[in-house]
Amino acid sequence: MSKLKYAYIALFIAFLPWLAFQKVNAQDYYGPQAASEWLTVAEAFKPKLIGQEIHPVGVVKLIPDTSAFQGWKTGPAGTLEDFYSKSFRTQSGTVIDFGAHLTGYYTFTIKESQRVLDGPLRFKLTFAEVPAELSTPFDPYPGTLSRAWLQDETITVMELPATITLPRRMSFRYLKIDLLASPRDFDFKITEMKFSAVSSVNVTPPLLSSKTSAVISKIDAVGLNTLKECMQTIYEDGPKRDRRLWIGDLYLQAMANNYSFKNHDLTKRCLYMIAGLADDKGFLYPNAFETPAPHPQQGAFLFEYSLFFNTTLKEYLAATGDKKTATDLWPVAKQQLENINKHLDQKGLFNAAEAQKEWWLFVDWREGLDKQASLQGIMIFALKETWLLAKELGKEKEVSHIPALISKMTAAARVNLYDKQKGVYVSGPEKQVSYASQAWMVISGVATKAEGQKALKSLVNNKNAVRPGTPYLYHYYVAALIKSGLTQEAKAALEKYWGGMVQKGADTFWEAYDPDNELLSPYNFFPVNSYCHAWSCTPVYFIRKYPEIFQQ
Amino acid sequence: MSKLKYAYIALFIAFLPWLAFQKVNAQDYYGPQAASEWLTVAEAFKPKLIGQEIHPVGVVKLIPDTSAFQGWKTGPAGTLEDFYSKSFRTQSGTVIDFGAHLTGYYTFTIKESQRVLDGPLRFKLTFAEVPAELSTPFDPYPGTLSRAWLQDETITVMELPATITLPRRMSFRYLKIDLLASPRDFDFKITEMKFSAVSSVNVTPPLLSSKTSAVISKIDAVGLNTLKECMQTIYEDGPKRDRRLWIGDLYLQAMANNYSFKNHDLTKRCLYMIAGLADDKGFLYPNAFETPAPHPQQGAFLFEYSLFFNTTLKEYLAATGDKKTATDLWPVAKQQLENINKHLDQKGLFNAAEAQKEWWLFVDWREGLDKQASLQGIMIFALKETWLLAKELGKEKEVSHIPALISKMTAAARVNLYDKQKGVYVSGPEKQVSYASQAWMVISGVATKAEGQKALKSLVNNKNAVRPGTPYLYHYYVAALIKSGLTQEAKAALEKYWGGMVQKGADTFWEAYDPDNELLSPYNFFPVNSYCHAWSCTPVYFIRKYPEIFQQ
Repeated sequence: MSKLKYAYIALFIAFLPWLAFQKVNAQDYYGPQAASEWLTVAEAFKPKLIGQEIHPVGVVKLIPDTSAFQGWKTGPAGTLEDFYSKSFRTQSGTVIDFGAHLTGYYTFTIKESQRVLDGPLRFKLTFAEVPAELSTPFDPYPGTLSRAWLQDETITVMELPATITLPRRMSFRYLKIDLLASPRDFDFKITEMKFSAVSSVNVTPPLLSSKTSAVISKIDAVGLNTLKECMQTIYEDGPKRDRRLWIGDLYLQAMANNYSFKNHDLTKRCLYMIAGLADDKGFLYPNAFETPAPHPQQGAFLFEYSLFFNTTLKEYLAATGDKKTATDLWPVAKQQLENINKHLDQKGLFNAAEAQKEWWLFVDWREGLDKQASLQGIMIFALKETWLLAKELGKEKEVSHIPALISKMTAAARVNLYDKQKGVYVSGPEKQVSYASQAWMVISGVATKAEGQKALKSLVNNKNAVRPGTPYLYHYYVAALIKSGLTQEAKAALEKYWGGMVQKGADTFWEAYDPDNELLSPYNFFPVNSYCHAWSCTPVYFIRKYPEIFQQ
Repeated sequence: MSKLKYAYIALFIAFLPWLAFQKVNAQDYYGPQAASEWLTVAEAFKPKLIGQEIHPVGVVKLIPDTSAFQGWKTGPAGTLEDFYSKSFRTQSGTVIDFGAHLTGYYTFTIKESQRVLDGPLRFKLTFAEVPAELSTPFDPYPGTLSRAWLQDETITVMELPATITLPRRMSFRYLKIDLLASPRDFDFKITEMKFSAVSSVNVTPPLLSSKTSAVISKIDAVGLNTLKECMQTIYEDGPKRDRRLWIGDLYLQAMANNYSFKNHDLTKRCLYMIAGLADDKGFLYPNAFETPAPHPQQGAFLFEYSLFFNTTLKEYLAATGDKKTATDLWPVAKQQLENINKHLDQKGLFNAAEAQKEWWLFVDWREGLDKQASLQGIMIFALKETWLLAKELGKEKEVSHIPALISKMTAAARVNLYDKQKGVYVSGPEKQVSYASQAWMVISGVATKAEGQKALKSLVNNKNAVRPGTPYLYHYYVAALIKSGLTQEAKAALEKYWGGMVQKGADTFWEAYDPDNELLSPYNFFPVNSYCHAWSCTPVYFIRKYPEIFQQ
C-alpha cells in the first residue's frame, strides 16, 4: 500500500465525525445550519411558565344521570374542612373538585392522626377532566392509544408526615383518591392539597362588547380557558393527552391567540421549531415534541398539515408585521407547495386514493369520510394564502405558477366535484356529501357565494351528509358559513355546537364532540379523549374577529 | 374578680407554652434535657452510607420445582446482551438477576429503537428477595401487614430517552419487569440497569480458620451478608420490610457485629436513640423509626425487649470498654428492672397470663407458644447481665436487690417449671414443653448443666415439643446448647438449620424459617416475610466467638 493510500484513509477517518453529523442533520435541506439556527431561535423564544397555586373548592360525588354529559355529573358531598379533619381511611374513593380545568403539578400532605405509621401507604390518584372519566373502569383497556395516557398513578408513601408532589404533569378538574394499602391500627389524614397550575399566558384579553349574549360570553370564556391551558412552552394540542405541537392545531390556536392573548412569540417559536425539524427533502412533519430536545414524530406525512404551515405563517405576518421571520421561513413555505402536483391528475383534480397510499390525509376524525373534495379545497386555499404571503414578501416571482394552478384546480373542482342538480359538492367515487366537502369548497373559493349558501344550507336537512366528528372540522364549517355570508347561521351553529358543550358542563372544549354520540372516540375509548383540546378553542377567534356577528 | 386572680390567670397563660413543651417531652423521665442530649449523640454517630454501583448478572426464568424453596427456583434464560439489544416489547415479564441480595436504589435507562415515542410507557417493577415472591400473585392480598410492603411499583414514563431512579429504597436480588402500557407502532429498549447498593459496613472481617468446613464458611458468609444488609444508618431488622430498629434484633446484631465488622459506633448510636425515646416513666419502647425524625412506634410495650436493652449495653461495654456511654445510659438500664416485680407472684414466679393483658410478650413467632417459662428465664438472665454491668460500673449499691431476686426467681422456676420425672421444663397451665422454655431455662442458669443437657436432648425426639418458628429463637436454642456443653449438638443444629437455608439457596437469612413449613408466615402471606432479617445473622456470632466449636 502506498503512502498516498494511507493519506486517503487518514483523510476519510478524519472526516468521519463530519459525515456522522451530516447524517444526523439530513433534514438540512435549506442550507448549512439553517435547521440548527431555526431551532436556536425556537429555544430563544421559549416562554417562562407562570405558576399559580390553586386549592380545591369542594368534595363531590359522582351521580349517574342519563341527561348529563356521558351519563355522569357531580354533586356536593361534604366540605373540605370535614375531609381534612377526618381519618382518610374512611374516605377512600373521595372525589375532590378543583373548580376549574387546570394543568400542572399536584401536591398533598399526609399526617398521622392515630398511632405511628407502621408500614407504607399506597394510593391511587386518578385525575379526570370530566366526571365520566372517574366512573368508567379503565381496565381491561379497549383503547388504541397507550393506556398510560389515562391519568391514574399509584404511589407508595414510606414515611409520615409526607408532602408529595407527583412528578407527572396532570390536566384535570376532578381528583379521585383511593387508598390501596395501609397498615392496620393506625390512622392518618390528608391535611392539605394544592395544585401548581401552569400556563405561559400572562395577560387578560379585552372584555367583549356589553351587548354580547350570556351564551356567547360563556363560550368565549371556555374557549379562552381552553387556549390558555394549551399554551404551555409550546402550543400543545391537548395538555392531558398528546401534549405536542401539531401544525393543524397550531394554525387555529395562533389565529385565536391573535384575537385574544396576542402572545405572538409563542407562535414564532412554534413556526421556527416546525421548520427546524423539516425532513431531508424540506417537507414538514405534522407535529413536534418539545422534550427532551425538539423532535418530530416522523412516520406518516400528514399532507394538509404541511400546507397549514403556510397559512399559519401568513396569518402570523398579518398579525405582527414581522417580515424578518416570514422571510426567514419563506423557503419552507415555498417548498411545501412541491407536493401539490404529486397526486393531481392532468385536469388538476386531486387523486385522494393514490395519495393515501403514501400520505396521511386527515380532515376530521370521522369513520368513512371521503377526503378528496376537502383536500382539493385545502390545497387551493393554501395556494391562495401562500400567494398572499409571497406578495407581502415580494416573492411572487418565486411562485409565479400559483395563480394558474389555482385556476386549473378550481375549474377541475367545479367540473368534477359539484352536483349542480342537488347543489352540493361531492367527494370520491361514491359522490359522498359531507360537511367537510362543503366547508372546504366554500373556504377555497371554488363555490360561488350563492352555491356556497345553497350547499351549506342543504346540509342541515340532509341526514346522509357526513357530519363533523370534531370541533376542528366544525371550525371550518363555521368559517365557511361566515365566508358565504350566512352570518346568522354561523352564530347559531357556534351557539348550538360549542354552546352545547357549555350546557353539558364543559370547563374547556373537547377534542371530539358529536351531540348525537357523546361517547364518540377516535381511539375506541372515550376516557382517553382529550377534553381540553387546542383545535376546539376557535370560538375565541370567531367571536372576537367578527364582533358584528357574535357580540351583538 | 380580684386583681390577684387576674395575675394568676396571666401567669397560667404565660406558662402554657412551657406546659405544652413538657407534654411533648413527657419521656424526659431522666431529668431535664437527657432525652434531647441522647438523641443528639445518636445523630452525631449517624454513619455515612457506602454506595456501590452494581450491575445485573443475568436473565433468569422462574421454574416450578417441588424440591426448591417454596416450590420455585430460577434458571438461566438468556444473556443481558440479548436483553439490552432486543425490543423490550417482546420481553415483558423478564426476570433480571442481580446476583446477590442488595439494598438501595434502582436505575434503568430506556431508549427508542423504532419510531418516536407517541405516548407514555407504563411499567410494573417487582423486586423480590426470593424466587417465589415473583411467582405468587400479590392480589387479592391476604396478609395482615400493609400490602404496600410488597415491592411492586408502577411507573409512568412520559418521554424518551429516560434514565429513571426509583425513589423507594428496594431490597432484593431478582427484578421482574412488566410492560403495562405503551403506544403501538413504536419500539424501545432497556439499554442499561444498575443498582446503587448501600450499607454502612465498610470493612471486611477476618478470614475464618483454614480448617473451617465449607458448610460453616458458607453459613458465615451468608450471615455476614445478612448483617451487612441490615446495617444502614441504624441497625434495621429487615431492609425490605419493617426497616426499623428493634431492641431484640439490636441485641443479636450488636453481638454479631462485635465479632465481625466491629462498627461499635452504630451500636452506640442505636442505644442512645432507644434511650432518648423512653416513655414518660422511663420505660423503653421496643422499637424506633429513624426518619423523618427518630420516633418510637408506641402502642404495645414489649416487656422482654425492654430488658434486652440492658443485655445489649452490657455487651457493648464488654466489647468497647466505653464506660462513658455505659454510665450515661445506666439509669435507663436500672429503670427497666422496675417492671420485673410487677407480675411476679409472692414465690417469684412470673404470671404471664396477667402480664399479657397489658404487655406484649414475644419470645418467638409461633402460634400457641406458652411464654411463662421463657419470660421467667429472660428476666433472670437480664437481672444477671444487669448485675454484671453494675459491677463493671461500680453501681452495685443502686441495684443491691438483684442477687436476692435472682435466687428467689430461680428457686420458683425450679419448683414450679421443672418436671423432674420427664426431665424437661414446662410452661403455663397446660405444662407445655417447648424449645423456647428449655433454651431460656438453660441460658438463665435455672437448669443445672446436667438438667439442661437432658432437657435439650429430649426435645429432638419429642414430637409434641413446640418448635421454633424463627431463627431468632433458634439463636437462643443454639446458645443454650453451647452453654450446657452440647457443643457438637450446637454445631449440628446450626449446620442443619442455617445450613438448611443455605442449601435452599438463601443469599441472606430469613425472618421466619420452619424446615417443615416453608410457607410459614407470621403475617398470613409468605411473600411479605423478610428474607434478609437481622435476627437471623447470628451464626456469625457463634462461628467467630467459638472457633473451637465451629472452625475445626
